[in-house]
This record gives sequence, structure tokens and C-alpha cells, in this order.
Amino acid sequence: MTSADQYLAELGQQLRVDAVRATSTAGSGHATSSMSAADLMAVLLARHLRYDFDWPDHPGNDRLILSKGHASPLLYAAFKAAGAISDEELLTFRTLGSRLEGHPTPRLPWVDVATGSLGQGLPIGAGVALAGQRLQEAESRVWVLSGDSELAEGSVWEAFEHAGYERLSSLTAILDINRLGQRGPTRHEWDLDAYRRRIAAFDWHTIEVDGHDPAAIDAAYTEAAGVTDRPTAILARTMKGRGVAAVQDREGMHGKPVPDEAEAVEELGGPRDLRVEVRRPEATTVPRSPGGPQPELPRYAVGEKVATRNAYGEALAALGAARPEVVALDGEVSDSTRSEFFAKQHPDRFFECYIAEQELVATAVGMAVRGWLPFASTFAAFFTRAHDFLRMATVSRVGLCLAGSHAGVAIGEDGPSQMGLEDLAMFRALHDSTVLYPCDANQAAQLVAEMAEETSGLRYLRTSRGADPVIYPPEERFPVGGSKVLRSSPGDRLTVVAAGVTVHEALRAADELGEEGVPVRVVDLYSVKPVDAATLREAAEQTGCLLTVEDHRHAGGLGDAVLDAFTDGRPVPRLLRLAVDSLPGSAKPDEQLRAAGIDAGAIATAVRRHLAGHGA
Amino acid sequence: MTSADQYLAELGQQLRVDAVRATSTAGSGHATSSMSAADLMAVLLARHLRYDFDWPDHPGNDRLILSKGHASPLLYAAFKAAGAISDEELLTFRTLGSRLEGHPTPRLPWVDVATGSLGQGLPIGAGVALAGQRLQEAESRVWVLSGDSELAEGSVWEAFEHAGYERLSSLTAILDINRLGQRGPTRHEWDLDAYRRRIAAFDWHTIEVDGHDPAAIDAAYTEAAGVTDRPTAILARTMKGRGVAAVQDREGMHGKPVPDEAEAVEELGGPRDLRVEVRRPEATTVPRSPGGPQPELPRYAVGEKVATRNAYGEALAALGAARPEVVALDGEVSDSTRSEFFAKQHPDRFFECYIAEQELVATAVGMAVRGWLPFASTFAAFFTRAHDFLRMATVSRVGLCLAGSHAGVAIGEDGPSQMGLEDLAMFRALHDSTVLYPCDANQAAQLVAEMAEETSGLRYLRTSRGADPVIYPPEERFPVGGSKVLRSSPGDRLTVVAAGVTVHEALRAADELGEEGVPVRVVDLYSVKPVDAATLREAAEQTGCLLTVEDHRHAGGLGDAVLDAFTDGRPVPRLLRLAVDSLPGSAKPDEQLRAAGIDAGAIATAVRRHLAGHGA
Repeated sequence: MTSADQYLAELGQQLRVDAVRATSTAGSGHATSSMSAADLMAVLLARHLRYDFDWPDHPGNDRLILSKGHASPLLYAAFKAAGAISDEELLTFRTLGSRLEGHPTPRLPWVDVATGSLGQGLPIGAGVALAGQRLQEAESRVWVLSGDSELAEGSVWEAFEHAGYERLSSLTAILDINRLGQRGPTRHEWDLDAYRRRIAAFDWHTIEVDGHDPAAIDAAYTEAAGVTDRPTAILARTMKGRGVAAVQDREGMHGKPVPDEAEAVEELGGPRDLRVEVRRPEATTVPRSPGGPQPELPRYAVGEKVATRNAYGEALAALGAARPEVVALDGEVSDSTRSEFFAKQHPDRFFECYIAEQELVATAVGMAVRGWLPFASTFAAFFTRAHDFLRMATVSRVGLCLAGSHAGVAIGEDGPSQMGLEDLAMFRALHDSTVLYPCDANQAAQLVAEMAEETSGLRYLRTSRGADPVIYPPEERFPVGGSKVLRSSPGDRLTVVAAGVTVHEALRAADELGEEGVPVRVVDLYSVKPVDAATLREAAEQTGCLLTVEDHRHAGGLGDAVLDAFTDGRPVPRLLRLAVDSLPGSAKPDEQLRAAGIDAGAIATAVRRHLAGHGA
Repeated sequence: MTSADQYLAELGQQLRVDAVRATSTAGSGHATSSMSAADLMAVLLARHLRYDFDWPDHPGNDRLILSKGHASPLLYAAFKAAGAISDEELLTFRTLGSRLEGHPTPRLPWVDVATGSLGQGLPIGAGVALAGQRLQEAESRVWVLSGDSELAEGSVWEAFEHAGYERLSSLTAILDINRLGQRGPTRHEWDLDAYRRRIAAFDWHTIEVDGHDPAAIDAAYTEAAGVTDRPTAILARTMKGRGVAAVQDREGMHGKPVPDEAEAVEELGGPRDLRVEVRRPEATTVPRSPGGPQPELPRYAVGEKVATRNAYGEALAALGAARPEVVALDGEVSDSTRSEFFAKQHPDRFFECYIAEQELVATAVGMAVRGWLPFASTFAAFFTRAHDFLRMATVSRVGLCLAGSHAGVAIGEDGPSQMGLEDLAMFRALHDSTVLYPCDANQAAQLVAEMAEETSGLRYLRTSRGADPVIYPPEERFPVGGSKVLRSSPGDRLTVVAAGVTVHEALRAADELGEEGVPVRVVDLYSVKPVDAATLREAAEQTGCLLTVEDHRHAGGLGDAVLDAFTDGRPVPRLLRLAVDSLPGSAKPDEQLRAAGIDAGAIATAVRRHLAGHGA
């Protein structure tokens, strides 16, 4: 071993020692999963990573994603070796208030995305690399350190396909094949060729390597950097718990400290304090400055019949013209979601992700990491495919805009598989999310602009398939958190709260009831989260009863959103709700609304019954 | 062409004609997607499928899953050719009340699972085949007809991996590679070798074939049946809209009828009325009779500290001993979910699905299709990965039991990536779901037995990582839809509604408040869906205010479930809620509960503030 290799080996041991110390001090954490990848990390840090720890947002920085997030002690040990954190901070691992969480999150400035839900690092890394190569022509590389267990996740294979197809040569997947998952042996254990065959079939360059041989690792990283027409996967044969006999390659040692810290540290050669000077990026690219003029949004004439999905597409195209940081992505349904309008005007900023919704959202997250403002669209129903990626995006605190089309039973004949009926529940429950549901085209267009103005979190827009009449003039504004009172009189006997397609049904019902001498208020609750509690309270006080009606399941949608405005201990109005309880089949849109009991007739009936004292 | 092949070609044309007629009559539907696969279907129906249409539950029946569910007209045309439906019924396609929905569902007795969300057929087919080979040793084969666009879904690659690894030779994937997706060309168009390389790398046998050559298709099916050590994928080069020049291999023709029905029918050689005698299965296996004696559930002493996940595992093992139709599946975390207790006692009925939650749920669905009662477990947080599969399982109306462990912030140091904080919202919004959340070990064990007694739908059990004291005796019963009033007195000034870990916090708060002379009621709402509306109403009437407290996000969980009991237009009590609003980091369990504001102290403070007139 050369002295240079000896240094790398020493650094690897230091990372192991620090991972052992951090987990033992914490009394929990993944020591053995850190130890298997320590040499992979040491060589990367000392020889290949280009990163300015003083300037995490440097556009020329490489990106390092620890997909096997449970090996966070290794990452933190590396940060310490790079001088980014102190030994004192290292030992705050997993304690209340520490930035060093059990799984890495962007509370640390050098962590771009939260990991810990396995199989997400590579998909997101592909997005980061795609942004770098297609949008920025950056010199920087993307390194994803992944475990072997997580290669069972389909999302990883969406990423292999995506990155291979897009020839993302800046992307290197470092696969820590330590044979042991949480429960026991993985499917393929140390059959590196099983992985190699699969990954190579997806048009990646592959390299097999002894993951504890610094020189071999160094050569593999160099080889990867030299491949210019495809991404590279480095398959590293490693041992879990490497270096400590009590745990090395043994089952039942996952996710816990080593049994004897002092013995382990001694076995690893004792503490060291090597300090790595990580190479800084040479690129001097100036970061893009986001923002721009107000978009020239499309304008629709009142009375015109336009689907909100169309307005979404047209507004997004206009937004893209005004704001150069806007990118759009779609899951091979851009002709349905209408993101194709953006694609036609801005083909260089449109990304076809095919029918792979996890990769769709992951790519959007990756682009957000690079400073872009992504709008990702597919059917509302199919965002459920990406639920875990959306959940983790909230932990990553990235800004994402999402548009789900084909809301509810109103889509008609295609039937339940294509109906978004649980999407409001999913998005409302996510942390730091905004949920918008327009009922007309001008409103939809304005809300697209509002989404771009928000500064954080997930912003979800629910659009409809069918064309409904425009009811708002193009000048009307729709702030997030607001609502519109569409019918109101001093004698209102009840308030119907609706959104999207049910606004039109509510208006029809109100007209019908008005003719019967029963005035009712109608509120368009286009902002489902946050809700306009003040308007709802006022309506409740003045009319005594709120009836919510939504093209969504009972649980988690508009009805629950309205109720949430009344959980502050003050008196609550009487409440009624109409939502989709049945399992729809195929039928025309108006038949669907009727069958689900959320059309004008059902609303009018519910109002009459309530006022007659029959309850719902 | 032999006369036999001529017959097959004629049958293929008949299926095309009927698909054209059905879609044209409906005015919508996927004609061209049906036409590409018509020859594949014709040969399967006439020569290879073994199926008794008069006895869909025959245990010896082959299973046919139309993964490209939008090609439903082809399936219905095949049912007509087999004599299962009439031509009149065929032409009810997509109309209100028809069994022939836009995408197939089990409203038709010959459809086992609903499809239409792409990429689900093969994962479920793998589950059906696994049940057949590992549990029943059935002779029957599983045929999955899949599109090419859907091969971008990661779930499909989870299935290729699973089926290849398990050597499911009874499974044949028929891949209709027609080059065109909804929006335009697929990634690989007619590069059949791109698919072949990928699939072969997952240890499948592969066959490339001209998908419009009946003799070649016939030979491929025969070859597939002869492969005994691995599943087979037949890669069929086809043309979308095959046979009608106006649409054949043309973009923009997805998901709609042909432009001119009469012309198309003529071009296809006019209507035919060939009737296929589908071969019936020879097997005479008697179906298993489910049910059995009451399980001998584990019993825990009051005061003992036991995690509900442990009780889940032990109760499941006991249930497995009593009921031979119970199977268990896990996503490589059985040591955490405790399904390993079942695995140890019933290794022949335990299925390791590795870290692939979509395939985990799909396999469970496949086993349910064969009449087994599956219990699938992983972390609550990671069921979000399978959200779309769960959604579609409700459309399929299969019975599934699911257990999500590691609920909420109470898991402690591992941090937000591992915390189930949105699972109640997800499961509550699903159609025909039951959501249970026990707070002690005896309750958890009883609820496992209750889950097995339910006769339909998804049944979700939320379990906790940490050990809490047992508060119920082993004899106590916990019916679905019930609740337990744990503290009650005539002078109660408020009701705390809790479940799971917050029950223990609520009891502590009640004790503390009681000492201050403020009696409060405590309700253990272990059945989150359906909720015990009567008990909640009574508590509201008697105490005037309900305070919900939950280890879950505000939206969609316990608080919303409680509110749902008050949406019938009758007076509503005052409402308060405590839930997890923040983004947690790492900390000890009790620190997490305190930081999230859902511990005993937070409950007591909220009660005091409310009674002092400050609201929440």
C-alpha cells in the first residue's frame, strides 16, 4: 500500500471510529451500516468530491446524496473530517435540537435532500444530474451512495431507466453491497453480478470493486468520471460492520451501536483527527437569479366553457415565458394535463418522465435542489404513486408545484381507476402544503401564478377534465388562503361550501332554492389549505349551518378542511357534508355527479331536508 | 397460413371489430390499444387459456390479468367470443350501470382485479402465481397482458425481480409493444431488445415475437408453458390500431374511437360471430374452506409494558395457528413490525417481499385473489409507497389486512423519515376501509382477531414502536366501530379523545387535572374508522367540549374522524385538537411528544386554557 493509500485507509478508519463514537454516545443509530461504506466515503471525500463547505449553494459544487440515510453517522463523520462540524457537535447525534438527526435532513446546510426512506436518493440524484446537464451545463458531478437493500425498490429502477436513457454521465451511483439488510441477508447477498447485469441492461456503465481497497475505489471513481456517454454504477463489495469483529458481517447487528465502544475503537486503531481539505469547485458560474416580470396570464371571457386543466397549461406556458427558473415535468400524460402547452413553448425546460410518477416527483425535487422551480403534473389519482416522495420532499423542505388533473367522479366514463378521489386528503395531510382547487379558468390561471409566488413547501393544484363556464372576470384575484362568496343575502338560511366542479352545482342549487324562496349562501373555497376561516366563521354565524359538497371522498377533503376552521373551542355551526361514498363505475359526468349525490339536485335536497328538520 | 392459423387470424379480427363497435357506440374508449393486442388475445383465448366461465372461482382456472386496463374493449370482446357476455351487453360499454366499465373491475365475475392504473397487473400477477406455486401447487397459469408504456413504472421492475427470484414459472407476461403511449412514442419504441435485455437480466425467460402472427404467438405461448424454472416474458411487436389505416401506428389516436366506425369494420372484414370453446381446467382441487377455531390470542398482564407491535406479531402467529388461510408478508422489516413471530411459526405461509412496498401490497392482493387472507406489514410511513396499490385494491374489492408500525413522533430518535404521520389520513380516505389504532397489547391482539373477522375491504392496524403499560385485561373485547370510556364522572368538564400513545398521555393529564379538581372524561377511540359516533355524541352533550389529541398530522386523522361524527346537521360541541404541526427532528420519545405538543402536559394546558375561556 502506498502512503497515499495508507492515508485513505486511515481516513476510513477515522470515519468508522467516529461513527462508532456517535452512535454509542447517542445509544442508538446505525453503526454497522456506516462502517461498510467508510472507505467508499473516505476516498470520495479526499480525492474526488468538489465541494465548498463554506458555500453550500455554490453552483459548481458536486452533490452528494446519502441514499442510505440511516448511515448518517458516516456522513457526519465525513463532515467532521472536512472541518464542517466539530467533534462536540458530532457527539450531539440524535439528541433533541441537534442538526445531526437520525437520518440526514437539510437542517444541515450541506444536505440537499432528506433521506431515510430508502430508494429515493438515486431517483432524486438523477433529477439533480438532469438539471445540471440539460439546464446548466455544470461541470459538477452527482454522487449517490446507496445501500443494497434499497435496490429492491422500484423507484430505483425508474431512476436507472431515466438516467440511462438521458445519458447522465455526471451521475455516479456508489452501491455499498454489504450483503445484509435490516432483517437479514438481501436477495442477492454478494452476487455482485446479479446487480451488474440488471444495471448494465439499463445502459449504465458498471464497475465492480472491493469496497475496502482504497486504491481500487480511487481507480473506480476516476474511471466513472471518464465515462462521458452514460452514468456509472460502482458495485462495491463490502462488509457490514467492517473492522470490528463483534459485529462484522453478522446478522442482528443492524441499527444499533456496537456492543463495546472502547473495544471497537481500539480495534479500529483508536481515535484519529485527520482533516481533509476537500477540493473546491473551479466553476465560477453565477447562480441564476429567480423571478421576473409578472406573467401575461391567459384571459377567458365569462360564460366561455373552459376546462381548468387547459387554463393550467396555458398559464404555465405564460409563467414560463416570464420566469426563466420555471421548469415543467410530466408523466407521459401532458396531452391530458395540458402541460404540453408549456412543452411546446419551452421545449428546453420541459421534461418527459414517462409513466413513472415516483421518478417524476424525484426529478422535480432534484431540480428544486439546483434552484429551479418545478411544476410536475399527472392525473390527480396517480400522484398517490409518489406519496412517499412527496412526504419526504416536505422533510427536505424543497419548493415544488404539482398539478393533478382529472379530479373526481366528474371525469365520467373512464371510471374509478382514473378518478382523483383521495388526492385532497393526501396533500392536506402533508407538512407545509398548500392545496388549491379552482372552479373556473381565470381562477386556475391566477392560482398558477400564486403557486409560483409561494416561497416554500408543496403547492398542489387540482384541475378538472371537463369544461365548465367561466364565472370570474380575468381581473379577479385569488390569494392563497382566500375564498369567494358567490351568493349572499341577509336572509341566507344556510351556506353551501364548494370547490371546483361542485361550485357550479352549488350555484345551480342556490338558484333553484332561491326560486323556492330559500336563499342560501355559496362559498367557493378554492383554497382548501389554508382555509379562509374568517369567511367560514362569518357564514356560519350568519346562516347557522354549513353544507360542504365535494367531488372527493368524505375523509380528508373539503369537508374536513372546513371543519378545521372550527376547532378552536368556540361555538361550532351545524354541519352537513356531501361527498363521494360509493364506488363509481362508468357513466357520463353529469350522471356520475348525480349517482354520487353531489350534484345540484342532491344539494337542494339536502338543504330542504335540513331546513325541514330532518337532518342530513 | 394453415386453416387453424386462419381461424386465429379471423378471431383476432373479430375482437378488433368488436372493440371498434363497443368504443364507437360508447363514444369513448381505447380502440387502438385494443387492436394492437387482439391477436395476442385471440390465440390465448382459443388455444392456451384454461378457464371455466361458468365457475370463475374454480381453483384450477388460469388467471388472466389485463394490466393495460384501458384495452378493456378487447377483454370484453374476448368475453363475448367465449360466450360469457352477449353482443347486447358488449354495446353497453361505459354506460351507467353497465358491468363493462371503462377499465375492468371485478363487477364482472371473470375479472379478479381492477386495472387501469398502469404497472399493477404484473406485480399482482406475481402474487397470484406465488400463491399458486408456493401455497397450492396448482396447475394453473397466470397470464398478464401488459402495455409497453407501463414498463416505465418501477412497480413492474419490483415484480420482475420478485417473480424472477421466486422462479414463478407459471407466470407469463405478454408485452404488447405497440410503440405508442398516450402522448406519443414510448422511450424504447420498437427496440424490443432494450426490453429483452432488461427483463432477461432479472432472470426471466424471454421470447420476441411478431404480435400479429398467430402461429408465432401460438408457438411462444407453448414455449412459455414449457419453461419450468423461471417466468417468461413474451415481447410482441405490434401496431397500435392494427388493421385500420386511419389509425394504425399513428400518433394522436389514443383513447378514442376510430374516426369512422363503418369504414373500419369493413376494412377489418366485417362483423363475425366466431364462438370460442375455452378449455376448462382439469384440476378437481376442492377449494379451501376458510375459517377455523378462535385463535388463542396472547394475554398480557395489566401494568406490563408491551409494545403494540409485539402484540401484533404474537396475535398474528396465534391467528395463523387457528386459521389456515392466513398468510403474512413483510417488506424486509419483520424484525421491526414483529411479523417475524408469524414467520417463525408458519414459515410456509410467510413471504419476504424485501424493500418493495408496492410489490408487498400487490402480492397480498394476488394472494387475496386466490382466496387467502393476507396480513401485510411494514412501517406505517412506508405504506405511502403503496398508496396507489391500496387505492386500486379498494376498486378490486379484495380483503386485505395491513399493519403499519412505528406510528408517529413517538418512535423517537430515528426522525421524520421513519415516522408514520400521514397514514391515518391515507387509510381513512380509502373506500371501504377500516382503521384501527390500539393503545395496549391486549387491545392490539384482540383487534388482530377482529381484522380477520371482517368480510371485506382494507383493514389497517396502526402499531407503536415503544412499550406502554397494558391497561385492559385480556378478556376485554374491542369491536370494530367501538370505543372505550376510560375516565368518566357526572361532573366532567371536557372530553379528551385519544388513541394509541396519546391514550396514556390523556390518562396522565386526566389524573393531573383531577387532582386540581377538574374532572375530564377520556375516550380511547381505538376504532378510527368507523368511529363510535354515539359515544362521542354522548360525551359532547355531557361535557360540552371535545379535545382530540393524536400522534399524526392535523389533517385526516383522529381529529377529523371525530368531527365526522358531527356532520349530520345536529348541534356540534365545542372542538379542540392537538396534533403534530411541526417538522420533528431527532429526540427521545417523550421529548418528541412534548415538542409536538401532544403529551400530558400539553393536554392539561389546553384543557386549563379552554376552561379559563382562552380557547385553544
